[in-house]
Amino acid sequence: MVEVSYVEEGSVGIVKTQSLTFAHPPNEMILESGRRLGPITLAYETYGKLNQDKSNAILIFHALSGDAHVAGRHHKTDPKLGWWDNMVGPGKTFDTDRYCVICVNVIGGCKGSTGPSSINPKTGRPYALSLPMVTIKDMVRAQKHLIDHLGIYELLAVVGGSMAGMQALQWSVTYSDRAALCIPIAAAARQSPQNIAFHEAGRRAIMSDPNWRNGNYYGKNQPIDGLAVARMIGHITYLSNETLRRRFGRRLQESTRLSFSLKPEFQVESYIHHKGETFTKRFDANSYLYISKAIDYFDISDGYSSVREALRATKSKFLVISFTSDWLYPPTESEELVNELRAVDKEVVYYEFPSTYGHDAFLVEGEKMTHAISYYLAHAKDKGRLESHQSGNEPLS
Amino acid sequence: MVEVSYVEEGSVGIVKTQSLTFAHPPNEMILESGRRLGPITLAYETYGKLNQDKSNAILIFHALSGDAHVAGRHHKTDPKLGWWDNMVGPGKTFDTDRYCVICVNVIGGCKGSTGPSSINPKTGRPYALSLPMVTIKDMVRAQKHLIDHLGIYELLAVVGGSMAGMQALQWSVTYSDRAALCIPIAAAARQSPQNIAFHEAGRRAIMSDPNWRNGNYYGKNQPIDGLAVARMIGHITYLSNETLRRRFGRRLQESTRLSFSLKPEFQVESYIHHKGETFTKRFDANSYLYISKAIDYFDISDGYSSVREALRATKSKFLVISFTSDWLYPPTESEELVNELRAVDKEVVYYEFPSTYGHDAFLVEGEKMTHAISYYLAHAKDKGRLESHQSGNEPLS
Repeated sequence: MVEVSYVEEGSVGIVKTQSLTFAHPPNEMILESGRRLGPITLAYETYGKLNQDKSNAILIFHALSGDAHVAGRHHKTDPKLGWWDNMVGPGKTFDTDRYCVICVNVIGGCKGSTGPSSINPKTGRPYALSLPMVTIKDMVRAQKHLIDHLGIYELLAVVGGSMAGMQALQWSVTYSDRAALCIPIAAAARQSPQNIAFHEAGRRAIMSDPNWRNGNYYGKNQPIDGLAVARMIGHITYLSNETLRRRFGRRLQESTRLSFSLKPEFQVESYIHHKGETFTKRFDANSYLYISKAIDYFDISDGYSSVREALRATKSKFLVISFTSDWLYPPTESEELVNELRAVDKEVVYYEFPSTYGHDAFLVEGEKMTHAISYYLAHAKDKGRLESHQSGNEPLS
Repeated sequence: MVEVSYVEEGSVGIVKTQSLTFAHPPNEMILESGRRLGPITLAYETYGKLNQDKSNAILIFHALSGDAHVAGRHHKTDPKLGWWDNMVGPGKTFDTDRYCVICVNVIGGCKGSTGPSSINPKTGRPYALSLPMVTIKDMVRAQKHLIDHLGIYELLAVVGGSMAGMQALQWSVTYSDRAALCIPIAAAARQSPQNIAFHEAGRRAIMSDPNWRNGNYYGKNQPIDGLAVARMIGHITYLSNETLRRRFGRRLQESTRLSFSLKPEFQVESYIHHKGETFTKRFDANSYLYISKAIDYFDISDGYSSVREALRATKSKFLVISFTSDWLYPPTESEELVNELRAVDKEVVYYEFPSTYGHDAFLVEGEKMTHAISYYLAHAKDKGRLESHQSGNEPLS
């Protein structure tokens, strides 16, 4: 265990996950499916101080396997920093000396918010598949309860990468005047069929695992083989061929000679096995089914005649970010979003950052995004168009 | 059933799979692993007539799930044409009026050649995992027995897409003076780590299926769930995001409304499920393990100091073909091969054809390849460099 000082330089220090429970029966939330869910608990963390007029709050969403713990540590000897600690903290991109940063978990997950592994208060047993399916819109509607609870009307920004970018977009559409700036990173206006297909192969792996037992595996063996395969597939799609070539190439694990067996021999094989195994220790298989499905359902145009019409009413400004080597949510899909935003005269700036890290760039290329994000956060509420604030120091398309 | 006339126009007509058995004990073939295999049976088909000096033979290899049945039908009412019937036949690209075309199956497979599902004559039971692992080099060395058996010294051409392109390359390296022209299509000089990782996720799915039973499932239930997942993963990698967008988009299967369940709802989901299911009816799970592993092992530089050194001794000319949207074996990897060939002064022409079909382009973009392939087949044995024969009618890089 690493002993850390109470306040590390540039760190938010020790933080605690909080939770909010609402939608108590008979006032359950009505989900997009028409089914009811309640009570609903949301896990969240906050960093920095909300100012007097509550105008400095930034809401950060998380991706498929993330949680509300975006920065800092949970206790003094906690060896693990929050998942975006490089971006959130005093003096950092999301500067907690200036902004109040909120990170909120999703419903359907397994990180403190209501999900399939939560106890259904009506039965005293885990929901399992009796939990209704949730959508990105449902996640965002639940999250708005938290923002209302905190007494915040307009967020300075809604931000996120991957599925979190979908939540940011959905927030700006559903709550058109409640975010000054929307920052979708490595995301898209709708989930592509290729991504749906990869998710479905993973779901099939989970649901074929005999330990899955139609979702009723709590207290028994977890469907770890199926979940590991799903994560292995997912993990490959988060990286780039170039990253894999550079990190592993065709190098063997143990010796310089092939074993000519069915055992993993190449380093890249043991790497994805490791990623699959560790994931099964920190994630619930049913949550993987629910959240991957929510992502697949995502199409910002749902309920509208087109993406453009969905975006027409929002008052948010947009900072859209993509990365060149991201083939899961490729720059072309961000460009489509940007074009639709511009078609309805939204204020939007778009950055396509060069990166070799694939989709994971949104987690690791913090430095590249810093200037743009901090600049536009500072100017989010300025009069006049975002474009006129461009500093000229960054690549822009 | 479709009633077909004996000779359809442009078709090779009714063909029969033949087989050759060799390497009878104690003269087994010694594999790259050092282990012995014999007797070895190879399934093959031939089309067109071998000329008197046996100088007009073209050897076509097949990809992971293919077989020796490249063209025509097996009987009058056979509804299924060979897998490259659009390319092989009288007047077609591989013109059976001019050339004798041979297509040969691989060892390790399940399409008539010796593989894990074959009966081990020593035990009277299927080999299962007691079959030694095979490599692309082993496949090619076995195939040379057939070419020797047919009395052919120099092939006019060795040809193939994907894994078959690897076999073509390996042939030209291992048998440096026994193919005038080598045509690797949508292939690479070595399997990339990304492709190894996708294969390994599929193998993990198969080997996690309780029906797999460490390979001893013959006569019992097949590990169809695992094999279906492996094929689903594979199939997604054979297509392009653009193909999936055009063919399926986000369209639903049955209705215009989401069911909000874990059932496949999008057309693309049922499509890959269908591809997974049908595959389990025509392919053996252990063969999938063996052949995918053989592909992963493939690195033409094995036994040499570099790709370049491996290619130095071959006397073959090369026609290298790639497709723009192929992200499994992307054009950059074909370019690397071309650069290495040119570095050791080989005669090589390279075509990168525009296509939206992804890796599958090698099967469906026959028309685009026709001119180049038939032109260079006709000039394969001309004196002078291939490049000087360029017609100027085709894109060339």
